[in-house]
Amino acid sequence: MFSEFHQPRFSETDALGHINNTVVPIWFEAARVPIFQIFNPEQDLKNWNLIIAKVEVNFLAQMGYQSPVEIRSHISKIGNSSFNVLQEVWQDTKRVAWGECVMVKFDYKEASSSKISEQERTQLTRHLVEKSEILTS
Amino acid sequence: MFSEFHQPRFSETDALGHINNTVVPIWFEAARVPIFQIFNPEQDLKNWNLIIAKVEVNFLAQMGYQSPVEIRSHISKIGNSSFNVLQEVWQDTKRVAWGECVMVKFDYKEASSSKISEQERTQLTRHLVEKSEILTS
Amino acid sequence: MFSEFHQPRFSETDALGHINNTVVPIWFEAARVPIFQIFNPEQDLKNWNLIIAKVEVNFLAQMGYQSPVEIRSHISKIGNSSFNVLQEVWQDTKRVAWGECVMVKFDYKEASSSKISEQERTQLTRHLVEKSEILTS
Amino acid sequence: MFSEFHQPRFSETDALGHINNTVVPIWFEAARVPIFQIFNPEQDLKNWNLIIAKVEVNFLAQMGYQSPVEIRSHISKIGNSSFNVLQEVWQDTKRVAWGECVMVKFDYKEASSSKISEQERTQLTRHLVEKSEILTS
Repeated sequence: MFSEFHQPRFSETDALGHINNTVVPIWFEAARVPIFQIFNPEQDLKNWNLIIAKVEVNFLAQMGYQSPVEIRSHISKIGNSSFNVLQEVWQDTKRVAWGECVMVKFDYKEASSSKISEQERTQLTRHLVEKSEILTS
Repeated sequence: MFSEFHQPRFSETDALGHINNTVVPIWFEAARVPIFQIFNPEQDLKNWNLIIAKVEVNFLAQMGYQSPVEIRSHISKIGNSSFNVLQEVWQDTKRVAWGECVMVKFDYKEASSSKISEQERTQLTRHLVEKSEILTS
Repeated sequence: MFSEFHQPRFSETDALGHINNTVVPIWFEAARVPIFQIFNPEQDLKNWNLIIAKVEVNFLAQMGYQSPVEIRSHISKIGNSSFNVLQEVWQDTKRVAWGECVMVKFDYKEASSSKISEQERTQLTRHLVEKSEILTS
Repeated sequence: MFSEFHQPRFSETDALGHINNTVVPIWFEAARVPIFQIFNPEQDLKNWNLIIAKVEVNFLAQMGYQSPVEIRSHISKIGNSSFNVLQEVWQDTKRVAWGECVMVKFDYKEASSSKISEQERTQLTRHLVEKSEILTS
């Protein structure tokens, strides 16, 4: 599991007084950096090799502005060229949102997906979880 | 169908040279305003009665900065207290992303879902589509 | 004068119920596109030739979520390699914010400012205004 | 001085490969929270008592995506009902941006400015600096 804490910003609230729903995908992307680094340790923009195919977020409770949030990121599936990242938002000891995204190892020059290497697979596997177990804990 | 056009902003790009993926949920929320107005014509913040339960976005192609995008919004399912909004991003005559979200009619004072009225259902039904038909067209 | 209209987004509000102040620089950047095009008609990212040196925004009144805003952009000063863009936000027939930014014609390869050409100057001059006249009207 | 560190987000970059200029006011607002708390320790939204009158940002160097930034916040002026916040962005041991904003103690019910109390003034004074000294250091 990768974990990071973030203090919600005032600009991330909306007129209903809570964190706007569109903010969660932004937090999730920011928290995927250690996963980007498995594929591109220097995060070299000229050799970027990941693309996002799908993102899904479930909202379980309203998120307040004042308490920090913890973003937890796991790997929930590993395929040949794609893998899933399962991510959660916790606030005040409660899971308030979770989501899953599909990332694809991608060759921008060829404009096609490419195979996850054994080394990358080994590193991803260290963070592999059972989605159902995470979400019922 | 609700349709609106948006000129992507430079601040919506990222270092890979295209529109950042986290921008699409923001465009989609902005394009749901006519749907909010079915439930709350004046968009009165003190009587807000919708909550988002889930959002999902699929990315089909990279979105450029220069061409305008069209956001198309449809209703893809109507339940007792919830309904689905199917949304698409078109750019340069191509569907480049689509997503679906689950909205729930919500009573913030009671903190519980509430029943969609007949009048609301009638209005939603005018925009009801078959998801599979939209996505194969 | 360049003018464009924008419907504020729900995600641009904050918990105080109005448009968050950090949104105005975003609207202003988006509205400077026709000015970018004076210097780079195709907006070619590989030949970008402008850099922003300073931005200033004055907030005159709270901006609501529902009414569209008009962003008006003018040129308020032209130097050898830099120029000022004066921008206003109007909502419900009232000026609610204004700002000025300093843009510099910039050679990214040389990492230094470069001279505004006669052709660019001619085009900028068409939008040149007296700042004091604009702000008192 | 208030200091906080932030890891720039990928979504905060733009197509030129650096942090987009519109992000700095967002970082600055987030870093003003300890100052909001001088006036409203619980950050109670119903008793909010500050408003922003003006914001100004100067960009000194391009900001990269990978290195963390430090946001430093100081008080540079204290008036009867308003005060200035001087803020800096440091990255890789270099000041890359700085700005100043004018905050006004504000009574939202009366829609008018209100007087800074002695207690608030004492707390602000602890962070009072000479702007010229900060910016030449």
